[in-house]
Amino acid sequence: MIYLDYAATTPVDKEVQETYFSLVSSLFGNPDSIHSVGVDAARLVDTARDAILNLLKLKKYDVIFTSGASESNNLAIKGVALKYMSKGKHIITTNVEHASVMNTCKQLEEYFGFDVTYLPVNKDGVITCEQVANALRDDTILVSVMAVNNEIGTINPINEISKLLRDKHIYFHVDFVQACGKLPVDYTVADLGTLSAHKIHGLKGSGLLYKGTNIDLVPVIAGGSQENGLRGGTNNAPTNIVFAKTLRKALESQSKSYEQIKKLNDKMRIAFSSNPKIVINNPAEASPYILNFRTKLGSEVMMNALQAAGFLVSARSTCASNYNDASHVLLAIGLTEKEANSSIRVSLQNDVTEKEIDSFINAVNEIVAKYCK
Amino acid sequence: MIYLDYAATTPVDKEVQETYFSLVSSLFGNPDSIHSVGVDAARLVDTARDAILNLLKLKKYDVIFTSGASESNNLAIKGVALKYMSKGKHIITTNVEHASVMNTCKQLEEYFGFDVTYLPVNKDGVITCEQVANALRDDTILVSVMAVNNEIGTINPINEISKLLRDKHIYFHVDFVQACGKLPVDYTVADLGTLSAHKIHGLKGSGLLYKGTNIDLVPVIAGGSQENGLRGGTNNAPTNIVFAKTLRKALESQSKSYEQIKKLNDKMRIAFSSNPKIVINNPAEASPYILNFRTKLGSEVMMNALQAAGFLVSARSTCASNYNDASHVLLAIGLTEKEANSSIRVSLQNDVTEKEIDSFINAVNEIVAKYCK
Repeated sequence: MIYLDYAATTPVDKEVQETYFSLVSSLFGNPDSIHSVGVDAARLVDTARDAILNLLKLKKYDVIFTSGASESNNLAIKGVALKYMSKGKHIITTNVEHASVMNTCKQLEEYFGFDVTYLPVNKDGVITCEQVANALRDDTILVSVMAVNNEIGTINPINEISKLLRDKHIYFHVDFVQACGKLPVDYTVADLGTLSAHKIHGLKGSGLLYKGTNIDLVPVIAGGSQENGLRGGTNNAPTNIVFAKTLRKALESQSKSYEQIKKLNDKMRIAFSSNPKIVINNPAEASPYILNFRTKLGSEVMMNALQAAGFLVSARSTCASNYNDASHVLLAIGLTEKEANSSIRVSLQNDVTEKEIDSFINAVNEIVAKYCK
Repeated sequence: MIYLDYAATTPVDKEVQETYFSLVSSLFGNPDSIHSVGVDAARLVDTARDAILNLLKLKKYDVIFTSGASESNNLAIKGVALKYMSKGKHIITTNVEHASVMNTCKQLEEYFGFDVTYLPVNKDGVITCEQVANALRDDTILVSVMAVNNEIGTINPINEISKLLRDKHIYFHVDFVQACGKLPVDYTVADLGTLSAHKIHGLKGSGLLYKGTNIDLVPVIAGGSQENGLRGGTNNAPTNIVFAKTLRKALESQSKSYEQIKKLNDKMRIAFSSNPKIVINNPAEASPYILNFRTKLGSEVMMNALQAAGFLVSARSTCASNYNDASHVLLAIGLTEKEANSSIRVSLQNDVTEKEIDSFINAVNEIVAKYCK
C-alpha cells in the first residue's frame, strides 16, 4: 500500500520513536513533584520548551503543551476570548478553518454572545489582507487565520495580516499545522500559534500552543498549576520532551523536502490537467504537499478504487464535523455539493518517490478511463 | 531511591509498555480516515472501548477518550452544565475535590452564573449522603463527588449518594482516579465517571470519561466528529487502545494488592501512632494506599530529609492550584495552615515491600528524633 494521506496523519519518525520509548521506560516522574524524580522530568520538559522556542525563533513567547492542535486552537480562541471579552466580543476568522476553530467560534457565539465574522475565501481559497482590514471593528479582540488549509493547501497572507494588526492591539492566532515543517514560515507574525506533532512524524496526542508572554488566557482544561495554570493535567513529559526533536527534524529537512514534493506535485498537476475527465480543485500556488482533484466518481468510490489499486488517499477531511456533509472548504471555493463529494485529497511527504507518483497517476487515469464514461 | 509517591504518578507496566510500543510502531493510521489504515486503527480503538465498558461492568454507557483525568473532569462538569443549564444552574460538589473539579466549578460560577455548593467534609474527610440531600434544590442539575480523595484517601459514600439521586434526574459525576484498581467499586453508581491511566501503571496523557448513553455533553475541546462529536482532535489510537490492557491488569491485581497494601499501611499507622512527635492526618478507614501525617518539620524540609535518606514522598499535591497555598484538603479536615504545611503524603503500590516500609518507618523516626526537639 502506498500511503498518500500525510495531511491526515504521519508515521512516527524512527529516531523520535526511539528517544520517546527510552523516555517512557526511564522517566516516569510527575514534573510537578518536587522530589528528584519529578524535578528530573520537569528539567527535561523545560529544556524542550526552550528548544522549541529557539527552533521557531520566538523571543518573549511561552510554550503550552497540549494534547493536540484541536486543543491548542480551542485554548487560543476561547482562552483569549474569555480573558479579554470586557474589551470586545468580535472575532474575525475565515470560512475554511479547521473544525476545531470553526466550532470553537460557534461555541463563543452560542454561549457567550460573541459576534464572529467568517471571511469568505476567494476562488483561490484564500482571504486577502484587505478583507481583514475591512472587517475590523472597535470591539475586535482576535483574528484567527490558518497559515495553510488542510484540504486544499491554500496559503493565506499571514505576514500582511500580522502587520495590519500589530499596532492595533488585536491578537492574531495562526493555525500552523499544515505549514510547519513544510513551508518557510515566520512564526513571530503570530501572537498565538498552533502546532501538532503527528502531522510532522511525531506522536499523536501531542500539540502545543505558543503565545506572547504578555498574553493571558482562560484555561480550557481548568486544573492545577501545570503550564503556568493555563492547562490542567499531569504533564505528559515523555511526549512533550520529544516534541522538540520532532520539530527540529521537521524543520531541518524542510527545504530539501519542499523541492522534492514540488516536483511530485507538478508531475501530478501536468498529468491530471491533460486528462479532460479530471479537474484540479486547488491552485498551483497552494502548498505542494496537497493536491485536491475531482472526477465524476463519488469521493468514496474513487477512494476505494484507488485503495484496490494500492493507494491510500483521503475522500474527506478526517476532521469534518459531519461525515455526510460536503466539505465546507470545497463549497467555499465555489464547488457544487456534487463536485465537493466527488473530490479526492492527495497529501505528500518526503518518503514518497517519483516512481510511486508515476504509478499513482496511472492508477487514477485507468480508473477514470474505466468508470467515467 | 524508594518511590512512595504513587498517587502522583506510577511507572508504566512493562507489558502495557511493550504492547504500546508495538502499536506506535505498527499502527499509525488516523482512525477517522476511511481507508484501510484508518479503519484498522478505528476497529482496535472501538474494541478497546468495548473491553473497558465490560471491565467496568457498564451497560448503556459510552467511553470518551481524553488526554487525562483533568480533561475528563472538565468535560463531565462543563459538558453537563452547559448542555442542561436551561433546566437549572445549581451544582453540588465537595470542598476537597481535585483542582480540575474545583476550578471547573469556579469557571462555571464566574462565566456562566452557576451557583455551586461546596459541601464541607467532616473531620474524617468525607461528606454524608444527608448533606447532599439537604443541599438539593429544584435547579440542581449535577452532583460531582470524588470516590477517594487524592491527598488523604478518604472514601465518600458514593453508592448512597447515587441512590439518592437516581430517581431525581440529577446527574452524578464521580472522579474515580484514586479508587480505580485500588478499592472495590461499583462503577454503575455514576452517570459519568473519570478514570486516569497514569495512576494505574498506564501512560500519561491518557484518560477517559464514561457516561450514560442518554447523556449529551457540550464539548470542552470543540472540533470534528471524533468521539461522537464530544471531543475534537485526532484519536490517539495507540494510547487509547492500550488503556484497556492497563485497566484490565489493574483490576485483576486489585484485591491481592489491597491486602498487601493494607498490611503496609497498618504497619506505618502502628509505628507512627506510637511516636508522640508524629500525628496521622487521615483516618484508619481511608484508602490504605495513602497515609498522610505531620510532624513539626515543614513539608519540604521533611521531604528533602527523606529524599536524602532514600525515600521519595509528596510534600504537597502535584495538582495544587498554587504551590504556596496550604492544602485545601488538609485545611478542610481542620488542620491549621502550619499543620497543613508540615504534612507529608505517602502513597503506595503493590511493588512496595514490607522491608522498604520498615526502613521508611525508621527513616521518619530518625529524622523526627534528630530535628523535632
